[in-house]
Amino acid sequence: MIKTQRNELSAELRERHQIGADWKFGRRFNVRWSEVDSFSHANHTSHFGWIEETRNLYLADAGYPLRDKSVPGPIVREVGCIYERSLLLEDDVFVTARTEWLGRTSFRMNYAVWSEGLIANAFAICIWMLSSDASKRSIPQDLRSYMQALDGAIERSNPQP
Amino acid sequence: MIKTQRNELSAELRERHQIGADWKFGRRFNVRWSEVDSFSHANHTSHFGWIEETRNLYLADAGYPLRDKSVPGPIVREVGCIYERSLLLEDDVFVTARTEWLGRTSFRMNYAVWSEGLIANAFAICIWMLSSDASKRSIPQDLRSYMQALDGAIERSNPQP
Amino acid sequence: MIKTQRNELSAELRERHQIGADWKFGRRFNVRWSEVDSFSHANHTSHFGWIEETRNLYLADAGYPLRDKSVPGPIVREVGCIYERSLLLEDDVFVTARTEWLGRTSFRMNYAVWSEGLIANAFAICIWMLSSDASKRSIPQDLRSYMQALDGAIERSNPQP
Amino acid sequence: MIKTQRNELSAELRERHQIGADWKFGRRFNVRWSEVDSFSHANHTSHFGWIEETRNLYLADAGYPLRDKSVPGPIVREVGCIYERSLLLEDDVFVTARTEWLGRTSFRMNYAVWSEGLIANAFAICIWMLSSDASKRSIPQDLRSYMQALDGAIERSNPQP
Repeated sequence: MIKTQRNELSAELRERHQIGADWKFGRRFNVRWSEVDSFSHANHTSHFGWIEETRNLYLADAGYPLRDKSVPGPIVREVGCIYERSLLLEDDVFVTARTEWLGRTSFRMNYAVWSEGLIANAFAICIWMLSSDASKRSIPQDLRSYMQALDGAIERSNPQP
Repeated sequence: MIKTQRNELSAELRERHQIGADWKFGRRFNVRWSEVDSFSHANHTSHFGWIEETRNLYLADAGYPLRDKSVPGPIVREVGCIYERSLLLEDDVFVTARTEWLGRTSFRMNYAVWSEGLIANAFAICIWMLSSDASKRSIPQDLRSYMQALDGAIERSNPQP
Repeated sequence: MIKTQRNELSAELRERHQIGADWKFGRRFNVRWSEVDSFSHANHTSHFGWIEETRNLYLADAGYPLRDKSVPGPIVREVGCIYERSLLLEDDVFVTARTEWLGRTSFRMNYAVWSEGLIANAFAICIWMLSSDASKRSIPQDLRSYMQALDGAIERSNPQP
Repeated sequence: MIKTQRNELSAELRERHQIGADWKFGRRFNVRWSEVDSFSHANHTSHFGWIEETRNLYLADAGYPLRDKSVPGPIVREVGCIYERSLLLEDDVFVTARTEWLGRTSFRMNYAVWSEGLIANAFAICIWMLSSDASKRSIPQDLRSYMQALDGAIERSNPQP
């Protein structure tokens, strides 16, 4: 199965959406009818769906595609989002992702949602966990290296949580 | 706001997904984590989301983007779908749409979902309706012409429903 | 963990929603904001979510709760729905389910969506399948007995599909 | 149309879920198949859907049901959630909501998700806004009174944001 290219950040999209140079990975979305609510805006939960999808593709690009509960993967421990502007049906959306820090079993990624300018800033702290028995696992070394090389993610010896 | 091209059907995608010449309009999707259920397959309701999105883009391309309840638009009267194969996370999906027939206020579109071969066949009968007062409206002449020119949609004098 | 009662069909709800005596199993829902689209109606895909949930609870009640891909469960082969009336935010919804027929590995269930009268009629043909290897499995005898006793489901020796 | 009772917090549910006395409003949910992902847990975005629904019912109970973009309503400015434990299919969930503070046009509500103990803590800062022209509106006096009487919400003269 040929997959589409995971990282869709290009010079053209940087310019269109005014995305800063400190973002290295991102994905395109379009606001779908199913994401628009009765206020005719993209509902605020849609952003978390796009962010989750972008995180998963970032991890897949690093060699760790999400699979199922038999394989360690990211479990969300904490999220937050600040919304600056609303989005309408069919709006061209771009979501960027980068890793801010890495602990032994947890990491924090920041996200931004763009559409010809900034729409929202968000973050998620995830734990690397085997879902089948809910055990925390060390983040694999090659995933750490990917995050450090791409984003300059810093090591934290005693991260919260 | 620059929108992405609505019709994404190309010779390359026809070949990759084995899409027949009788389909003229289609859209790309990727199976998202939020669309995969605990069986690790795209849930069967995801297909209806992609189909709805493709229908809306087809109508937008014809000059009738969905807006809100103050403007006539398609209200679903009947749908059906037959699933041939399952889809996995990240699978590259393509959905094609074409109009089969047109009545005065209703129309039937057929859909197919592809991923290197056929995944599902579906249809939807829609009524052109003003949601604010639930009144049926005549399908506009230029929308009729678009459907006839693109898909050879036939006129039905007394369609069900 | 105490679970809520799965079958919520009562004499009071039969009367309120005008549900016929041939329905024996059902569930309550309320139209959520996330299910309402920019036409201010419950989107047509919401009904499939309620129907799926009702089917799963029916199967759980028979001793076959859905789990994951390591255990056989229902895979949707074909669905259809005819919509009679639209639903608004917060509307009280009731979904009924019954089994029409049973083959060796497949079964057809009919569904109705109610809200002080009929909203929609639907059906789904499911295959009893182990998702991990996509193999068809015989419907367990006690599940067959449950469907026959509750709904008078008939045996079909050579069902489609 | 008879609506179900909006506030479902009872002494029995307080005890079952170990909900503190400082919560006065809440709603029941069950984890649906559509909310469970391939890790066989309720996806983290599901919680925001339940929280949004609980907030809307709280506002409806105060006399301000959400309608459409022609009437002022809550627009989400900022959200956050910390997840303590995961949830499985069919788990009985209860979501509580209370208002922490009120500005002239914005308010902060806190939320907790319960299932025989605490599952998650969350908050949302909303702006009272007319979506049709994106104008901020003063929170109506009777809504302020409801929030103050029920939850002891405090006035903030210069709230962020």
